[in-house]
Amino acid sequence: MISKNTIKLIHSLSQKKYRKKENLFLVEGDKNVTDALRSKIKVVHLLATKTFLNEQKTTAAKAIKITEVDEKEIKKASLLSTPQNCIALCEIPAQKKLPLKLEKNISLYLDGIQDPGNLGTILRISDWFGVEYVFCSPDTADIYNPKVVQASMGSICRANIVYSPFENISDLARVSNAEITGAFLDGKNIYEEAFAEKIMLVVGNEGNGIRKDVEARIGKKVMIPHFADTKDKAESLNVAVATGIICAEFRRRHSR
Amino acid sequence: MISKNTIKLIHSLSQKKYRKKENLFLVEGDKNVTDALRSKIKVVHLLATKTFLNEQKTTAAKAIKITEVDEKEIKKASLLSTPQNCIALCEIPAQKKLPLKLEKNISLYLDGIQDPGNLGTILRISDWFGVEYVFCSPDTADIYNPKVVQASMGSICRANIVYSPFENISDLARVSNAEITGAFLDGKNIYEEAFAEKIMLVVGNEGNGIRKDVEARIGKKVMIPHFADTKDKAESLNVAVATGIICAEFRRRHSR
Repeated sequence: MISKNTIKLIHSLSQKKYRKKENLFLVEGDKNVTDALRSKIKVVHLLATKTFLNEQKTTAAKAIKITEVDEKEIKKASLLSTPQNCIALCEIPAQKKLPLKLEKNISLYLDGIQDPGNLGTILRISDWFGVEYVFCSPDTADIYNPKVVQASMGSICRANIVYSPFENISDLARVSNAEITGAFLDGKNIYEEAFAEKIMLVVGNEGNGIRKDVEARIGKKVMIPHFADTKDKAESLNVAVATGIICAEFRRRHSR
Repeated sequence: MISKNTIKLIHSLSQKKYRKKENLFLVEGDKNVTDALRSKIKVVHLLATKTFLNEQKTTAAKAIKITEVDEKEIKKASLLSTPQNCIALCEIPAQKKLPLKLEKNISLYLDGIQDPGNLGTILRISDWFGVEYVFCSPDTADIYNPKVVQASMGSICRANIVYSPFENISDLARVSNAEITGAFLDGKNIYEEAFAEKIMLVVGNEGNGIRKDVEARIGKKVMIPHFADTKDKAESLNVAVATGIICAEFRRRHSR
């Protein structure tokens, strides 16, 4: 049985100010919750149906508090239009510190990504392609927004995410010998350009792209060529799709 | 001044049954509306601010009916959380017929894509990479869903979209000499596998992938390799991202 207060708490977590106040974020959906339980994330309160609790007995046991609920209750509490079998209230971990050096050959810097779906999808891409760090400009959307968590499909539990001004990231790239490579509409064709052995890939805001002061520190500008044969065509690709294509192309040439 | 009835009509168009009844769909956002006005789409009613109408004078004149509105009114009528300067009510064009033959070297078949954001993003990708047709299984989300239109960023006005059972598409691919190539998690590495000169790329539903009866007609199964070095990793890529990566890789090898 879910208390009214818990429902109220869950709903409040769609807003950043309450996530900050409670130091909690919401994870929904069987796959996402299972991933959270298996990760280092502290699941403070798991609300789940009998079916879920039976199927995921050992995993569910990692939650600090468990409440068995029925589907109707989940529906009442959920922020999703088609809720699944569980909801987890998780502790927001302390923000990771900037590393002294990048060890792996690809990290990302997100310069003002605003759409939570894009941010979550980029975390999922990073997870798939073995990206070491996802650095976010301070004005990038909050990774603990439930829509980001949802779109990341569990990847948020594994990603190394650090919010930091580009200045620091640019210094870090320099000491790590990583070439800062930015995605632009007027950059050089990624299929004709060599990537450095180690890169810091920068992608920009959905509407405005990469900021001028960030651009000034970028060593290499790349673009994904289009192949439309008409005058009218898409002006750009979605930023998550572009990130995926560039990460894939980097990995085609440089494996881990 | 927007009438109450127009606001009611606009809001109703978020639902498929009303889109069908009115034979109208909604386009919002300056870029999307401009693209609609410049395309073959019939803009039945344009609601726009003075600024938009001044800036886009010639383009706006293509609308059958124009109503000048202020920002407050747009906000009232809009389905978006951050509305822009215009809303267009557009006529749903007659469904395109199946072509007798595919002329270009890449078309897509979407097997049950459910998320409107993914569908719109795939239309944008198709536009960018010069995909000839986007075929959709009958149970794929409705392309005139406002969220699809939004995510397509104008590409919906240029795409050739046909809803059809896979049977027909499979026949069409055969007579067009296009190899049916499906995206799977257990297919062959796209970077090690040759693409045919002409392909029909099949991508599947977000949760369940490609249906068994569709799979049975697929000539080549491909996958995008992951590069995570940990046991726990993303299980898959988002379907729009995967579509983008495969289209880009196809185009790297076969231009138009």
